[in-house]
Amino acid sequence: MIIDKLDSPVEGSLMPTPGGRFYTDPQIFALEQEHIFEKTWNCAVRSADIAEAGSWKVVQVGREQLIVSRNRRGEVRAFYNVCRHRGMRVCTQESGSGRTFQCGYHAWTYDLDGKLVAAPNLTRMPDVDRDQYGLRAVAVREWLGYVWVCLADEPPSFTETVLGEVVTRLGDVHHLDNYRIEELALGHRINYDVAANWKLIIENFQECYHCATIHPELTNVLPEFAEGWASQAFVNHGAEFGEGIDGFTVDGAAGVGTLPTIAPDQDRRYYAITIRPNVFVNMVPDHVIMMRMVPVSAERTIVECDWLFVPEVVESGTDVSASVELFDRVNRQDFDACEKTQPSMSSAVYADGGVLVPAEHHIGIFHDWVRDKIGSGPSADG
Amino acid sequence: MIIDKLDSPVEGSLMPTPGGRFYTDPQIFALEQEHIFEKTWNCAVRSADIAEAGSWKVVQVGREQLIVSRNRRGEVRAFYNVCRHRGMRVCTQESGSGRTFQCGYHAWTYDLDGKLVAAPNLTRMPDVDRDQYGLRAVAVREWLGYVWVCLADEPPSFTETVLGEVVTRLGDVHHLDNYRIEELALGHRINYDVAANWKLIIENFQECYHCATIHPELTNVLPEFAEGWASQAFVNHGAEFGEGIDGFTVDGAAGVGTLPTIAPDQDRRYYAITIRPNVFVNMVPDHVIMMRMVPVSAERTIVECDWLFVPEVVESGTDVSASVELFDRVNRQDFDACEKTQPSMSSAVYADGGVLVPAEHHIGIFHDWVRDKIGSGPSADG
Amino acid sequence: MIIDKLDSPVEGSLMPTPGGRFYTDPQIFALEQEHIFEKTWNCAVRSADIAEAGSWKVVQVGREQLIVSRNRRGEVRAFYNVCRHRGMRVCTQESGSGRTFQCGYHAWTYDLDGKLVAAPNLTRMPDVDRDQYGLRAVAVREWLGYVWVCLADEPPSFTETVLGEVVTRLGDVHHLDNYRIEELALGHRINYDVAANWKLIIENFQECYHCATIHPELTNVLPEFAEGWASQAFVNHGAEFGEGIDGFTVDGAAGVGTLPTIAPDQDRRYYAITIRPNVFVNMVPDHVIMMRMVPVSAERTIVECDWLFVPEVVESGTDVSASVELFDRVNRQDFDACEKTQPSMSSAVYADGGVLVPAEHHIGIFHDWVRDKIGSGPSADG
Repeated sequence: MIIDKLDSPVEGSLMPTPGGRFYTDPQIFALEQEHIFEKTWNCAVRSADIAEAGSWKVVQVGREQLIVSRNRRGEVRAFYNVCRHRGMRVCTQESGSGRTFQCGYHAWTYDLDGKLVAAPNLTRMPDVDRDQYGLRAVAVREWLGYVWVCLADEPPSFTETVLGEVVTRLGDVHHLDNYRIEELALGHRINYDVAANWKLIIENFQECYHCATIHPELTNVLPEFAEGWASQAFVNHGAEFGEGIDGFTVDGAAGVGTLPTIAPDQDRRYYAITIRPNVFVNMVPDHVIMMRMVPVSAERTIVECDWLFVPEVVESGTDVSASVELFDRVNRQDFDACEKTQPSMSSAVYADGGVLVPAEHHIGIFHDWVRDKIGSGPSADG
Repeated sequence: MIIDKLDSPVEGSLMPTPGGRFYTDPQIFALEQEHIFEKTWNCAVRSADIAEAGSWKVVQVGREQLIVSRNRRGEVRAFYNVCRHRGMRVCTQESGSGRTFQCGYHAWTYDLDGKLVAAPNLTRMPDVDRDQYGLRAVAVREWLGYVWVCLADEPPSFTETVLGEVVTRLGDVHHLDNYRIEELALGHRINYDVAANWKLIIENFQECYHCATIHPELTNVLPEFAEGWASQAFVNHGAEFGEGIDGFTVDGAAGVGTLPTIAPDQDRRYYAITIRPNVFVNMVPDHVIMMRMVPVSAERTIVECDWLFVPEVVESGTDVSASVELFDRVNRQDFDACEKTQPSMSSAVYADGGVLVPAEHHIGIFHDWVRDKIGSGPSADG
Repeated sequence: MIIDKLDSPVEGSLMPTPGGRFYTDPQIFALEQEHIFEKTWNCAVRSADIAEAGSWKVVQVGREQLIVSRNRRGEVRAFYNVCRHRGMRVCTQESGSGRTFQCGYHAWTYDLDGKLVAAPNLTRMPDVDRDQYGLRAVAVREWLGYVWVCLADEPPSFTETVLGEVVTRLGDVHHLDNYRIEELALGHRINYDVAANWKLIIENFQECYHCATIHPELTNVLPEFAEGWASQAFVNHGAEFGEGIDGFTVDGAAGVGTLPTIAPDQDRRYYAITIRPNVFVNMVPDHVIMMRMVPVSAERTIVECDWLFVPEVVESGTDVSASVELFDRVNRQDFDACEKTQPSMSSAVYADGGVLVPAEHHIGIFHDWVRDKIGSGPSADG
């Protein structure tokens, strides 16, 4: 594989990036919220966080706050967190559980499928259709141990879009299935508040031309990253551990034990997938790192990062800090770079954008995807 | 009275509310400032706060800061707090007193009627008309022990608008006069900073469909409120104290002694009036609670709440905390509901608004009044 | 000189100021940034702060962040602080030094003249022109011991604009040369964060009609200022020290020794120059006070103030606090007045502006200059 990469056309031209306005304009951000985050599948909540019937969690998707919950039949449900009477937030905590959803203002009460089941004087208001005035539902789906939601009235095919991204990267979704992510347990979670546009974070994740400069620990474990080629520039390429590296840890020491179901050629390798718009999946032999982005404004993004291990590791209290610390450092290095890039996006020098070197050209596919979603043309690319 | 209410048509249809934009759009808020708060009578300052000649207080009305003061003849005056020379704030403290108003920048000096009376070299500037360059005055009026101001060049009739609101609610302004509010003294004052549109606060104050859900102390004192009908849905209805309730206090214990001038049928009852745009008056047998709203932005409102008692109660240091605590709790419960409603106003689900149940239909009169003031049509109601 | 001033036409008419929007409108502020601060010469950095080859400092000019540095030949250089690859800030500290500028993201590296000299894989990207992809440079000039920069593609004549301002004020630039400001050393520096539009600060600096009201210490030293005439209303007028005043200090006590090169008629006098758009120069017999303004928004300005003395005074550790304290108090008094003026600029009463008395009429020249720069007409003056 490394041989293949050295054969790659690193010689080549520079490609232009979008102009700086792409990363600062509130109108472009609003278009992205409307046409990307509110129209595609977003990874929203860890399934285990709403394991029991009646448990729920509140999350932000696009510009909307949703309640993601589980009904008595064990099915996940997601609703806008807006009472249909006068609009108060129905759930006012981050998470909780109960047999119904009752609005705290006038006690309009909905069952776990969102249907209006009670309200003061409701029996004397015969024209109130209890389904019509139920909580407004959105499309929902479980996969990889997470609840995915889509606000669109007619959601795109999950297979073609979400799974399609995996196929594009790995060639076949079975390469991902091997990790049995849905069976893993949460070992650690960190939320990062990043003062940068969400697209800078995706661009950063997709290229490794910066790895030699800012990621000493990562390039120690994965020496090929120092050459500047990201795994994501190739189909099903996993960056190989260096000689003497025993695990994907901050110092290359052994991790917590290889996942029993991965293929032999997945051992001693790091794979990464970007599932647009808001998910990064990082797979290493003994754990998986799931990252979800929640854009807050054109210049701010929340990134939630979960480190997942086999349940026995988590339940036994095994020390996973050396594993967590490696990617936590990588995250902080990356987000620091994004935060120091954001301010320049409004400079006159960057009005027409910068350039992508050959090892970054595949980022252009992402730029085209965004432009296509929000409507192409000069208004969108500065 | 309670019999009358049970006969009321609680059966009925749902009525639509305005769309969420009504509560979030800065342009609608600017129209409200211009056409409502800067054109109607606002209750601005407690008269006793500027009791002496030369005393003054600075207040915000609409988008303007005013000086409200009293001249040597004991008359109240109100001026824009803007020096006519280079514009500096003339009064730079919250309150004070003096024989003139002197701008701290270039010492332009105005008398207590706003006339320009001195400035460096003024005698050598013969073309300066001292009235023309006086502080710009606004209409002013004392009533209920408060100074009411109106920024309009041609203020509407105080009798038809302010007193008209009282007549609409109580049938006759004499029902209010009985409380002799202008003779009461300030026992306690609390300012609330509420993260909600001012109209949500008015809507909340006008209906009692929420009382059973969020006001346990209030419905303990006024059991009929648990049925969901607000006093303000009826003419001159006062909600009656429950059996075993001795006063309008947090635990229903006796208050501080019935006001000597109220009518027998006003005893053991709570009356409420909304004087649009910014005043709530709450009358109970032994005190009066005056509330004034100052809108800060589409999503923030300051509410100033005064508890008024007969002067002897205040001067003697009688403990009024049980009286204050009841309505302070009611306020906090109400404002909490408003703050948890505000965020949903920007949800797509609330773009076309929510619904009013029959017991809330009278709120629609308020919506129509606002729409009429700011110019009706689709632009104003989302 | 004082006689001359008493002969001046203090009798006269009032002149209108611009309307309040001139000081609050973000669109006018953007026009000022584009057409004033980004087109004229700005005093940016003290030369001594980048004395050595390779030393640099980051500064804000208009809406841009610049690197101001010195190359190996001792020449000053200024560049936009934007990497030409993906846009990250090249210098991420306030100041520093080095042999090259290396971007911390992908290690693109520029020499001290801004030329691209190294980048990963650069040798395999033959089409990358190292000058074209060098740091974008801006015009630069040293004068008075400061680096002046101009972002315009075709900078205006330094002689006609910057030196022209000095000639307008002093009649001849030699009157300024006498102070040999470029040879002075920094004795003290204070940065002020002022919640006011930059033009209010310039207007304040240009007139002394306010001096009697707010500057007791200054008028003690310079009694003629109490009459309301600013030095800047006249050509080459220096306000004379009062009788019994021994120096330009907070209490009029002796300063640190007269500068050896000033003319006899410059002793015991205070001269002030406004070099539009962003510099004030204050000259007294024993020191010079240089002030630079950095507008942040329509309602906020940073003012950097340097007190300069002969190097021997600074090196010997002589106590200069009595000198510093006088103008520090003057600054705080002035900025306080500006901050109390800013809020009124959005009042309806100030929509058409205020007035200038005869002793302030020369401020109108500044208003005309701004209007002319940003495009005249009703859109610019409220």
